[in-house]
Amino acid sequence: MSIAIAVDAMGGDFGPRITVPAALVVLREMPSLRLSLVGDESLILPLLSRLSSAERARVSVLHTTEVVTMEDKIAVALRQKKQSSMRLAINQVHEKTVDACVSAGNTGALMAVSRFVLKTHADIDRPAIMAALPTMVGHVHVLDLGANVDSEPVHLLQFAQMGSIVAEVLDGIERPRVGLLNIGEEDIKGNDLIKQTDELLKASGLNYIGYVEGDGMFKGHADVVVCDGFVGNVALKASEGVAKMMAGMIKTQIARNWLTRVAGVLAFPLWKGLKHDMDPGRYNGASLVGLTGIVVKSHGSADVASFAQAVRVAIKEVEKNVPALIHARMGHDEKSGADAVSAN
Amino acid sequence: MSIAIAVDAMGGDFGPRITVPAALVVLREMPSLRLSLVGDESLILPLLSRLSSAERARVSVLHTTEVVTMEDKIAVALRQKKQSSMRLAINQVHEKTVDACVSAGNTGALMAVSRFVLKTHADIDRPAIMAALPTMVGHVHVLDLGANVDSEPVHLLQFAQMGSIVAEVLDGIERPRVGLLNIGEEDIKGNDLIKQTDELLKASGLNYIGYVEGDGMFKGHADVVVCDGFVGNVALKASEGVAKMMAGMIKTQIARNWLTRVAGVLAFPLWKGLKHDMDPGRYNGASLVGLTGIVVKSHGSADVASFAQAVRVAIKEVEKNVPALIHARMGHDEKSGADAVSAN
Repeated sequence: MSIAIAVDAMGGDFGPRITVPAALVVLREMPSLRLSLVGDESLILPLLSRLSSAERARVSVLHTTEVVTMEDKIAVALRQKKQSSMRLAINQVHEKTVDACVSAGNTGALMAVSRFVLKTHADIDRPAIMAALPTMVGHVHVLDLGANVDSEPVHLLQFAQMGSIVAEVLDGIERPRVGLLNIGEEDIKGNDLIKQTDELLKASGLNYIGYVEGDGMFKGHADVVVCDGFVGNVALKASEGVAKMMAGMIKTQIARNWLTRVAGVLAFPLWKGLKHDMDPGRYNGASLVGLTGIVVKSHGSADVASFAQAVRVAIKEVEKNVPALIHARMGHDEKSGADAVSAN
Repeated sequence: MSIAIAVDAMGGDFGPRITVPAALVVLREMPSLRLSLVGDESLILPLLSRLSSAERARVSVLHTTEVVTMEDKIAVALRQKKQSSMRLAINQVHEKTVDACVSAGNTGALMAVSRFVLKTHADIDRPAIMAALPTMVGHVHVLDLGANVDSEPVHLLQFAQMGSIVAEVLDGIERPRVGLLNIGEEDIKGNDLIKQTDELLKASGLNYIGYVEGDGMFKGHADVVVCDGFVGNVALKASEGVAKMMAGMIKTQIARNWLTRVAGVLAFPLWKGLKHDMDPGRYNGASLVGLTGIVVKSHGSADVASFAQAVRVAIKEVEKNVPALIHARMGHDEKSGADAVSAN
């Protein structure tokens, strides 16, 4: 099977000098991969000069100079930047000239444009941002990580259903354990959203294991953890913040005096292993689930290895045909565009 | 100045064998400290046998065998366990026979009983749980960490006002920088709660620095970060979970083979420093702010060093007279009990 991926080459903090080499890493790994690199060809073409002619034949460049910036309002991205690299990458998914697209651009814009162009499945009210996070024993799929604030119980139920399908097909788990993110005090447990969602999940037929606390996410008790996008985004960012702080503390400890500097050098094999365990690149690539096509969001600050990982996530979802599976299990019609986003 | 602290000796995962030795550590540090140890004297008294007679004279034991368990519903703690060690410790604060109390017991029960016995200040609708978390450059006071779910904007404003006062007096900061925890996407930024709270904070006269993201909390940009208790609790627990996971990964890396085991030994000075930096004990002791008296909550799983730290937090709040300051700046009357909690 040949797979085609559109890459928003201009997205992210560094643009083509990260996205293009990263995409080419995956191109070399996978002989059946074709790439559509979308962006300013004056920046992209020089980065392709070292490709063999066989490799070059698998790469097309779709030229545009319009870019959605990190600061752009959603309305601007949606209504005024119809030739942006982000928009043209997503358009290709809609037109089925590619199987998926990857962008490190503005998350809010990416979600809004994807939703407008691709629409959600019929039985899904809102798409969600889903990503795998490391746990003590493997990883956990968490959604929503920030696409939706003020979610209602039915939205969290849909997130759970989608998350369960994705964990099942990506990880080969027969009945993924689904947990609902909650706080720990018995009586004041949960707000109304949580209590009502708990009821829906109990009746859902999913392998619902009940509440999971913030620290429980990282213990590996659940395969899928569901939460409102506000809570999920705060939890994700807080987790990233702590990991960075600990890495910084280790560096400070090493720099403290000659004894600790020597210890730091001697402990090199440990850092190497820890770096591998915690490598954000291993977990880069969040999926916008619930849409009729595959859109993967990379961290804006991704390096080559991390962005390449986001491309691999997109490929895996293509191979497993994730949107079609969600469509088949959750609904049969596609929503009209006007229904999903009132803009064009 | 002599300070008296009531200790709920039965609270926490380990009861008197942690809480009593921990309280005695602080007793020895501070010659003017008096302790009221509340709980089963058959368990407490043997732990006092090694005290000098001068030390022993500063310790009283208030005997009771009733205990609020971690599983007890709030209603049970409040209505049926009026002789619990937790309740009697809080009662002493109300009766002013002690200046503050410390408990490692059930958080929900501690909050409810404290609120019922001590009441909130007049201009405070809801008390909050506030704790200092480590940052890359020091620490940040975060509230609410779980006392309130479904907070309204005015509650978050009050949390900000209280947090600012506490940071000012505990840390000696003239105009503490107050941040509002939010997510990062520009247009979908924040839910309604956040947007309305943002307006209130802008008009509050506080040194409000705007939104802080989950990772920003740990960067030290703000002295106080305000959030709803649901979000705060999830962020706190997620942060703890990541820190534990990373510590576990380091251990796994060390155990991997002989080379890494040697590296682990050689890196000993680093672990010692890192352990100090990350020591949860350094940050144990969450304050229940907004009440007319001082109640400090310790982690249930605290060890002797950690619980001692929670006692020190209580002492510091007594020395700085935190509730009186909050009272003076925010209101002048005390709320009636019926108003605060409809139980007795």
